[in-house]
Amino acid sequence: MSHHHDAVTVIRAKRDGHALTAGQIDWIIEAYTRGEVHDEQMSALAMAILLRGMDRAEIARWTHAMIRTGERMDFRHLGTPTVDKHSTGGVGDKITLPLAPLVAACGAAVPQLSGRGLGHTGGTLDKLESIPGWRAALSNDEMLAQLHDVGAVICAAGSGLAPADKKLYALRDVTGTVESIALIASSIMSKKIAEGTSALVLDVKAGAGAFMKNLDDARELARTMVDLGNDSGVRTTALLTDMSTPLGLTAGNALEVRESVEVLQGGGPADIIELTLALAREMLDAVGITSVDPADALADGRAMDTWKQMVRAQGGDPDAELPTARATETITAPESGVLTHLDAMGVGIAAWRLGAGRQKLGDPVQAGAGVQWHVQVGDTINAGQPLITLHTDTPERFPAALAALDGAWSIGDSASRQVLVHERIA
Amino acid sequence: MSHHHDAVTVIRAKRDGHALTAGQIDWIIEAYTRGEVHDEQMSALAMAILLRGMDRAEIARWTHAMIRTGERMDFRHLGTPTVDKHSTGGVGDKITLPLAPLVAACGAAVPQLSGRGLGHTGGTLDKLESIPGWRAALSNDEMLAQLHDVGAVICAAGSGLAPADKKLYALRDVTGTVESIALIASSIMSKKIAEGTSALVLDVKAGAGAFMKNLDDARELARTMVDLGNDSGVRTTALLTDMSTPLGLTAGNALEVRESVEVLQGGGPADIIELTLALAREMLDAVGITSVDPADALADGRAMDTWKQMVRAQGGDPDAELPTARATETITAPESGVLTHLDAMGVGIAAWRLGAGRQKLGDPVQAGAGVQWHVQVGDTINAGQPLITLHTDTPERFPAALAALDGAWSIGDSASRQVLVHERIA
Repeated sequence: MSHHHDAVTVIRAKRDGHALTAGQIDWIIEAYTRGEVHDEQMSALAMAILLRGMDRAEIARWTHAMIRTGERMDFRHLGTPTVDKHSTGGVGDKITLPLAPLVAACGAAVPQLSGRGLGHTGGTLDKLESIPGWRAALSNDEMLAQLHDVGAVICAAGSGLAPADKKLYALRDVTGTVESIALIASSIMSKKIAEGTSALVLDVKAGAGAFMKNLDDARELARTMVDLGNDSGVRTTALLTDMSTPLGLTAGNALEVRESVEVLQGGGPADIIELTLALAREMLDAVGITSVDPADALADGRAMDTWKQMVRAQGGDPDAELPTARATETITAPESGVLTHLDAMGVGIAAWRLGAGRQKLGDPVQAGAGVQWHVQVGDTINAGQPLITLHTDTPERFPAALAALDGAWSIGDSASRQVLVHERIA
Repeated sequence: MSHHHDAVTVIRAKRDGHALTAGQIDWIIEAYTRGEVHDEQMSALAMAILLRGMDRAEIARWTHAMIRTGERMDFRHLGTPTVDKHSTGGVGDKITLPLAPLVAACGAAVPQLSGRGLGHTGGTLDKLESIPGWRAALSNDEMLAQLHDVGAVICAAGSGLAPADKKLYALRDVTGTVESIALIASSIMSKKIAEGTSALVLDVKAGAGAFMKNLDDARELARTMVDLGNDSGVRTTALLTDMSTPLGLTAGNALEVRESVEVLQGGGPADIIELTLALAREMLDAVGITSVDPADALADGRAMDTWKQMVRAQGGDPDAELPTARATETITAPESGVLTHLDAMGVGIAAWRLGAGRQKLGDPVQAGAGVQWHVQVGDTINAGQPLITLHTDTPERFPAALAALDGAWSIGDSASRQVLVHERIA
């Protein structure tokens, strides 16, 4: 232990509502990463931070202390401006899949380091791995080469980025200390800043299916991350978007890839297209590309071409048949009317229970499992028509999935579609 | 892990300001004691409790859940009512030493389970161990026999009482979660209730040298413990007493035994006599002994007789010479005047650094080490007279002890003595 700091003094300072000093923050992150500050001390500090908060300067220092525990990437010699997107996670959120090739087709480089799913929200890598042959793990050199040649890469974040964050996140998960805006913001941004992107667009979700249940919390998280990014030299903006109802018409791995390909082919659900274009415009604006309309690149097949190159560069066959689940079960509409409510959390949990997600890190996922809904909120449906179809390789899971959907939808007289993009934070 | 409870749900409930249910409290204390709830989870919960508090019902449930993890003692078949005293800890607080034999001499049985010192406050067992031959560890049968024959026993609490508290206290010590009134109260009272005493008098200290720096916090702690004791069938009262300046004229192991023997011989500092008699009257009142004035039992040597029997019963020689330190250093008064200020914390830290206390559990202590002050606040001193004498076997520690006393005392024109007993809580 250092002569100048000890864990109890740092914990007590935050517990008593004081701002931590730069020296205290640097020391505790380093000492925790080395194992000198123990898990039981860090979890007490995490709880104190959750309940007492951190100010802008503390959050920035905390983030950079975590970044310094690992490697930093550098894309400056690419010659093309880099821009990345991060979503705080939602049900049916497959936007990264059409977005990355679309933005690359418009001239930016998109280094999209992604993760796997845990709990009711899916993981981008899990979705792409349903494409036969596709592999998530790339070396830094392979990643750079693909960025140069194709313009877009979606791959697994190496374990070298912000290892302190990895250790701390696993601890927060078991100690009830996840839901801290300071800790969420520093966790997300430590990896994004270490990744070395020059610009970043955040999709901060609010609603029943998101981490942040209300718009005020989502706005505070967005503001914290936008400030943190810009203070660190990453041009950062955020869109606050709705996650009360799931995105598109599918939640599941191959199901979502199929829907993404439909969008790249010029079809697909209107909300997926709208959000993909809104985020693409943000990303292009962030790197100063204003002469290209991403709607054109989507319509004329350039985004689709980039998608195919991107999939092939990582060993995947973009034309291969995608896996389908061995069993399906369909809920039909009990009456005619308008779908007035479809709960994102219920759908997410159903997809997870069907095998699309994992219970704990390292569990396998089913490529074909998931939930498909045939209408969106505001759409009309007739009695007897299919409303929701469940997909799984393990049909014994149907009852648990049906239980999650119990009360998660309703049919009535009328409903208006949710506003998709609430606000922009810059 | 139980099907009905999990640690994260319990932590989140307290984190979000809810009262824990009886089932949640019982489960988490049991599961923590068994090792199923991990230290990093319990420390996050302890921090949430520290910042969110527990209500009276939660504290009672928490205390009894800790009691149920171990054994309970039972003195009911003794035939004599039992009464115990507990002090929240202060500098120079040797009151237990004259008090236990005094109250026994008046007709009550005093089963005084005590601890060792950690940090700046001394431990009763460490003090008594400076008596040649005296041993702290007694079996339950030995303890009962001594209670029956002598009426007073001061010995080490067995590890069988509330083992959950022992585990939790060690965790709180390294995670900045000691200073919670709910956790302090349940820790103290779990052991006292498990010990099986029929009555309990609490000496709750307030001031610079105490855990509770101000009277409001001390009053809240006292009220919490008094309610908890009475709710559990232990007749409990508390005195709120001053700990801004140290008690008596000595802090150290043999130094404090010597001062206690002076009090039992009819001499000693006035504040020690006053507090000993006040606590003795509380204790006797609690067990319905109203016909005996403890001042008489102190004056006529009955308390001294019981002291000698008590020391002899545990192998000690009450007439043996007590150890003295190999080296002393004396601070003399730089000017004539009245001692206006003597800081309990400064004196406590100096005694600790001289070797009277320990840095960590299991360290040895020096029997002769400590601090002796020759005047108390309000007394007159002349320039050049001895003010403070430091005692140690390791004179290389003098500079560190002198540093702790720097600014810890002052001489001025006039000062009034502190009120010793602020309030009674019943």
